[in-house]
Amino acid sequence: MQKGILLILSGFAGSGKGTVVNELLNRYDNYSLSVSATTRSPRPGEQDGREYFFKTVEQFEAMIEKGEFLEYAKYVDNYYGTPREYVEHKLDEGKDVILEIEQQGALQIKEKCPEALLLFIMPPSVREIYNRLKGRGTETEEVIMKRMTQGAREARVIERYDYLIINDDLDKCIEDVHNTIQCSKFSTDRNKDIISRTIEEFDGFTA
Amino acid sequence: MQKGILLILSGFAGSGKGTVVNELLNRYDNYSLSVSATTRSPRPGEQDGREYFFKTVEQFEAMIEKGEFLEYAKYVDNYYGTPREYVEHKLDEGKDVILEIEQQGALQIKEKCPEALLLFIMPPSVREIYNRLKGRGTETEEVIMKRMTQGAREARVIERYDYLIINDDLDKCIEDVHNTIQCSKFSTDRNKDIISRTIEEFDGFTA
Repeated sequence: MQKGILLILSGFAGSGKGTVVNELLNRYDNYSLSVSATTRSPRPGEQDGREYFFKTVEQFEAMIEKGEFLEYAKYVDNYYGTPREYVEHKLDEGKDVILEIEQQGALQIKEKCPEALLLFIMPPSVREIYNRLKGRGTETEEVIMKRMTQGAREARVIERYDYLIINDDLDKCIEDVHNTIQCSKFSTDRNKDIISRTIEEFDGFTA
Repeated sequence: MQKGILLILSGFAGSGKGTVVNELLNRYDNYSLSVSATTRSPRPGEQDGREYFFKTVEQFEAMIEKGEFLEYAKYVDNYYGTPREYVEHKLDEGKDVILEIEQQGALQIKEKCPEALLLFIMPPSVREIYNRLKGRGTETEEVIMKRMTQGAREARVIERYDYLIINDDLDKCIEDVHNTIQCSKFSTDRNKDIISRTIEEFDGFTA
């Protein structure tokens, strides 16, 4: 069985990346969602190993010490991180593991796992990003402009991703993301074992 | 309009690459076949600009002189080459231009056009290559073994291609090739203009 692909998915606020991830999981059976570890307390209904792996600060810091995270960060007073072991286990099972994560975490992972595939999702235009944030009707103009300033920073990092996919029509976007991931499995870099085996088989024939 | 992709397609004898090319042209309207130039005489029914651009040796050598070929080679007493202008014209029209060509020509082109996409097609196993050649019933064991020796050489060059696609089920292979080409258009390298425009648009918003 071919090992799965580690898929890192990021996007601007309002890009619809959360919906894309949910639909990939709903429509295809080859995907698995990475489960993060955190030191924050579980909320009602959250289950250890499903929403998060819940850890104490001591446990989390011991994991950092042992290099057990693909990436981690501290937000406010809590740690969040991606445990390497869980991801590796799923990849070995042949699952394509999806990690929805912001850019700094994405680049940390690309550093450690050069074979990870980095996808960035964006709406068809910047005006559309503004309109979608505005359309939610839940955020003040000040918060929206903070998001836009953050977007301006993020736009400068897109070139470090492998693929840029436009979310104009949702169904097309989901299919584009799916096909991009599946076709990346044909890259010669990911098929070195088949190439070696083919060389050996030819040599056996012509010896 | 996004510029088309220059697709270089190679494969072992018996890989079915000719059929794959024909079916890409039949099933989708985004492809265009590159037309080669040659100094050999037209055969009955062949038309200048359709099967080949027919040239005199003087004309061909003048084109070499002026750097008008993406690649060329001399087989027996005739020149064969890929005129750059025709390919560029089709790419500018947004067509994905297919070039079915052997490995040395493919690598020559990759050198000159790093953005070209190199695909190698192979049957599911080396045994299957032998069986398909044998099954034709038209070639002696000696010729078949020559093809196998050539295959052994070609197998060592596959790693220099971008993608390796297995032709086990023909319809799946055609779809895989098509999706791989189309999804390669999402690479950030091919979308630098969209990324720059996005940065500018954000800057306009937050200025």
